[in-house]
Amino acid sequence: MQKEIKKIGVLTSGGDAPGMNAAIRAVVRSCAYHGVGCAGIFRGYQGLIENDIEDLDARSVRNIISRGGTFLKSARSNEFKTPEGRKKAYDNLKAAGVDALIVIGGDGTFTGGLLFEKEHDFPVVGIPATIDNDISGTDFTIGYDTALNTVVEAIDKIRDTASSHNRLFLVEVMGRDAGAIALNSGIGAGAEEILIPEEDEGIDRLISSLKKSEKSGKTSSIIVVAEGDKSGKNIFELAEFIDSTLGGYDIRVSVLGHIQRGGSPSCFDRVLASKLGVGAVDAVLDGKRNIMIGIHHQKVITVSLETGIKGEDKFDRDLRRVADITSI
Amino acid sequence: MQKEIKKIGVLTSGGDAPGMNAAIRAVVRSCAYHGVGCAGIFRGYQGLIENDIEDLDARSVRNIISRGGTFLKSARSNEFKTPEGRKKAYDNLKAAGVDALIVIGGDGTFTGGLLFEKEHDFPVVGIPATIDNDISGTDFTIGYDTALNTVVEAIDKIRDTASSHNRLFLVEVMGRDAGAIALNSGIGAGAEEILIPEEDEGIDRLISSLKKSEKSGKTSSIIVVAEGDKSGKNIFELAEFIDSTLGGYDIRVSVLGHIQRGGSPSCFDRVLASKLGVGAVDAVLDGKRNIMIGIHHQKVITVSLETGIKGEDKFDRDLRRVADITSI
Amino acid sequence: MQKEIKKIGVLTSGGDAPGMNAAIRAVVRSCAYHGVGCAGIFRGYQGLIENDIEDLDARSVRNIISRGGTFLKSARSNEFKTPEGRKKAYDNLKAAGVDALIVIGGDGTFTGGLLFEKEHDFPVVGIPATIDNDISGTDFTIGYDTALNTVVEAIDKIRDTASSHNRLFLVEVMGRDAGAIALNSGIGAGAEEILIPEEDEGIDRLISSLKKSEKSGKTSSIIVVAEGDKSGKNIFELAEFIDSTLGGYDIRVSVLGHIQRGGSPSCFDRVLASKLGVGAVDAVLDGKRNIMIGIHHQKVITVSLETGIKGEDKFDRDLRRVADITSI
Amino acid sequence: MQKEIKKIGVLTSGGDAPGMNAAIRAVVRSCAYHGVGCAGIFRGYQGLIENDIEDLDARSVRNIISRGGTFLKSARSNEFKTPEGRKKAYDNLKAAGVDALIVIGGDGTFTGGLLFEKEHDFPVVGIPATIDNDISGTDFTIGYDTALNTVVEAIDKIRDTASSHNRLFLVEVMGRDAGAIALNSGIGAGAEEILIPEEDEGIDRLISSLKKSEKSGKTSSIIVVAEGDKSGKNIFELAEFIDSTLGGYDIRVSVLGHIQRGGSPSCFDRVLASKLGVGAVDAVLDGKRNIMIGIHHQKVITVSLETGIKGEDKFDRDLRRVADITSI
Repeated sequence: MQKEIKKIGVLTSGGDAPGMNAAIRAVVRSCAYHGVGCAGIFRGYQGLIENDIEDLDARSVRNIISRGGTFLKSARSNEFKTPEGRKKAYDNLKAAGVDALIVIGGDGTFTGGLLFEKEHDFPVVGIPATIDNDISGTDFTIGYDTALNTVVEAIDKIRDTASSHNRLFLVEVMGRDAGAIALNSGIGAGAEEILIPEEDEGIDRLISSLKKSEKSGKTSSIIVVAEGDKSGKNIFELAEFIDSTLGGYDIRVSVLGHIQRGGSPSCFDRVLASKLGVGAVDAVLDGKRNIMIGIHHQKVITVSLETGIKGEDKFDRDLRRVADITSI
Repeated sequence: MQKEIKKIGVLTSGGDAPGMNAAIRAVVRSCAYHGVGCAGIFRGYQGLIENDIEDLDARSVRNIISRGGTFLKSARSNEFKTPEGRKKAYDNLKAAGVDALIVIGGDGTFTGGLLFEKEHDFPVVGIPATIDNDISGTDFTIGYDTALNTVVEAIDKIRDTASSHNRLFLVEVMGRDAGAIALNSGIGAGAEEILIPEEDEGIDRLISSLKKSEKSGKTSSIIVVAEGDKSGKNIFELAEFIDSTLGGYDIRVSVLGHIQRGGSPSCFDRVLASKLGVGAVDAVLDGKRNIMIGIHHQKVITVSLETGIKGEDKFDRDLRRVADITSI
Repeated sequence: MQKEIKKIGVLTSGGDAPGMNAAIRAVVRSCAYHGVGCAGIFRGYQGLIENDIEDLDARSVRNIISRGGTFLKSARSNEFKTPEGRKKAYDNLKAAGVDALIVIGGDGTFTGGLLFEKEHDFPVVGIPATIDNDISGTDFTIGYDTALNTVVEAIDKIRDTASSHNRLFLVEVMGRDAGAIALNSGIGAGAEEILIPEEDEGIDRLISSLKKSEKSGKTSSIIVVAEGDKSGKNIFELAEFIDSTLGGYDIRVSVLGHIQRGGSPSCFDRVLASKLGVGAVDAVLDGKRNIMIGIHHQKVITVSLETGIKGEDKFDRDLRRVADITSI
Repeated sequence: MQKEIKKIGVLTSGGDAPGMNAAIRAVVRSCAYHGVGCAGIFRGYQGLIENDIEDLDARSVRNIISRGGTFLKSARSNEFKTPEGRKKAYDNLKAAGVDALIVIGGDGTFTGGLLFEKEHDFPVVGIPATIDNDISGTDFTIGYDTALNTVVEAIDKIRDTASSHNRLFLVEVMGRDAGAIALNSGIGAGAEEILIPEEDEGIDRLISSLKKSEKSGKTSSIIVVAEGDKSGKNIFELAEFIDSTLGGYDIRVSVLGHIQRGGSPSCFDRVLASKLGVGAVDAVLDGKRNIMIGIHHQKVITVSLETGIKGEDKFDRDLRRVADITSI
């Protein structure tokens, strides 16, 4: 029989993403709306093990929807990977009177949650939040849209100086396994070429593309490179290779790095996070467990946590064609 | 038999929207990609009548993807509403060697295009661009996402001063017939109450909501009001009504106005505009006509121009519930 | 003999300005640096009367430097205008062990502080913070630079839509008595004409300027109007007057309003606020009183509170000439 | 006897800086105001040698005040360092009917201009534009204020992720010889420690500062490092050194790089550039030559080009103290 839910715990784990605060806020306020208690767990699973838990009410989350990062903080936890760690976590949840757990993060977060759920027969619901948009079972993850805007704004700035000097810029953006950020921000920023992990077209394509660009009258160029691109060269080696192969270019490298994780979330991410947070509490109160809340065709859906973990190739060939055409 | 397309004309019409330049760029470059000529028509249908037409090549649209507004400019044209005006337009298109027309705008733009198509048996393809997202047949219109971000950033600023002074702010946002901007930006900005044209809950709901807010410990509040809200009062009258009914509030009004139309487009809008621009040229070359290009479930689709014109109630009741819950 | 200072109180009062939080932070940390206690007083003089006081340490002000508004909140206080109110304030300060008061705000704030100082022989030091930059004795007030950027960004957005439609926009910006915001933001945004309180050139100048603009080939125009302009017409009447006098214009009005007070402070304002906050504590510990901290020629200075109150005409005729020349 | 000035040439040279377009616009419009011709020279001294010159009128510079970079483009020119190159430049200027040259850039730009002036007895006036603010004879250079805001916004984003993870971030900002950007942006972004070229306090200070931070309860820290800091280690080596010396930190490195040069200029930079552009044309028409236009105590001044070249130590010890106090 379904145990009545009197208090829900919420934590953020893994890499932070803009909109996590909006998701926490939606969970907390949804609990208040349904007359259910809410416990905020600080520093993810590690804080859970260390009993870093605090009750939250509707006013605890005021003025956080516009802020990047996560006020509950995040952390990696090796201890939670052990049965002993998870046992401590379970004991702390019971002691705090928490009946279900909402975990906000990426696939690592869900893997931990799934293990915990099975081991302790404890309801866990996941909310996908990561700038990489590489979670299966949801069209979008929280933070992705904001990261795209951050990258595009940064490349717009680089374009100013590239145009002024007729330079070639290589810009590295996040994405070890997924090229979604590179492909979308590359189109958005008007990049001349985009290198992504899903394709290995060889460096020859890049060289011939640059030759074509020059012939077509382009005087400056931006090449967007995902971290995990398959050229076999890091971005500095790539710059040297172009220089030694083509010559005549004034080449610069820019690694955008950690600015891509921060910033005030976009409206899209705030609304997405609000929907998913409300949906997660709905699901918990509905007796659902072992699931992830996702968005599909603009509707809130639930899929199994296993789905969220298994990853997905969201590579969009149509979009690659759009990139090729618009950079002509 | 299908006439071969040698040159495509492109124009923007109606209210401008961020991302129109990105759409024009995609059309122009797509023409270049397919080896087809492209003619830019300035000032919409009026410029077409006045023969304000210029050939564009791939380099003509460099560095415009990041800019708001439309470099082809837009205008209203009463003359195009007459058969004589449309005849002039047709003659100018023929003289310029243009075989098909891509029109970027909203329902008024498509109405003109449809009439023109029928009258002169001339292929017309529409691209939906308006900040209001009120076009049927597409999940999103170009400019809507950027407008949401602009509104949310503006209300974030207003929140700073509202919080500092424990004030109640009424903020008017665009939306005469559709509450999409108000509802989404209201959730995104953490508004305490949102008034939209699709609902007429009466002013009593607002008053009781404010009383509840006060009781729950809120010290400042933002109320987002769509232009076309059904309270029967304009925003200044609304402020007076609240003041005289509740008293004790320090009330301020802010009408966001035209800043909502401008600004550098978001990545979402740039990518959407690129997809739709490429899709429009694909459609023209594919012999399609009398259609609008749209986006549905992240895929480019085509629907009839009639569909684009007839409007659609996109009001999302689930979203209203999210607003109610997260503003508790 | 000089009483030893063991604890300093700090409050913000009057209209909020971006950078107030940075100033509070600098005061609090400067107290910590010097080993002196610091008491935060909430809601300005009114909170002081109501004993809304809390001790602050260096960690209390973490992560606030980037935020608009004031976390100490601000309020108007009629009670502080009475001797009874000020007596209560004094008693509360004594009870809290506060030996000196730093007040952050504008001339109204300083007027109250001066009265309090004299009446109760209590050291008061002022820090000038107001977006209007209308305080005598300092080159810049906290918040002014941020407001200029906010206005310019807003007008940049309006420019997008003005250019797209060949429109004439009248944009109202803050400044009842001082045209500093209008004049500087007008130059920065490339306005064609700027109306400020310090000048009454008559409406004829505006009309002839518009005629000249049209002749010179300008197709769209922005006119920046300070709230307190001397045309004798409000901005809507001004629009009607232009329409009826010149005709042929597509005129729009935009009142920027309260967004001008908010937003994350610029680097300039954060550094200025940090300097002035440190300088205020230096002054208090140095036994100075009845003074305002200001910035002059990039150096921190002190002037009498009376100086800060008396206002100053900072109107810069050279800048008006720059406006006239660059808008040709 | 003074030759009458009928046409003024303008170019940008060296590293680009936001506000260069605003300065060009002011020069062009000032020429139009005074009824003098204006020739835009593309790609700096190299374009001058290659006769890449175009007449500009008031409308040529419309809508550029808000854009980063320089539409006249910039370039380095080795040829201009030779007498032959400068002779070609002179011949081209004479052929184009140009009587005086306004050069916008940094000390390298002025060095070339000075040489040219002396060799060919040709009036040259400099306008200081560089994000580093390292030009003697002016309080501020064009682009510096914008760069500070760009850096602070980037570090605000990094702060989000640093706070969420209790991390230590090392952030490299521009400044090979001058620490102005690092010191001001470091204060503005609330950095815990700032390393600048003007000081060599040894790495021990940094280590002890970090120890102190930890003891004071700080859970995350930002260290801003100017490119030219005197630690003898690059930023990655510095991170390793801290890791091996202190341990227990989760350290990340971010090199902001080229985004610091781009972006829409701040209001401050737009107004400064407008003033200096107008001042430069005034100076030329006034018969002045061999000078740089600068800003001192908010007034436009002229100094010799030699002054502009010789560099200046603007290191502000008071500001260092503010940094130390506010980061406690």
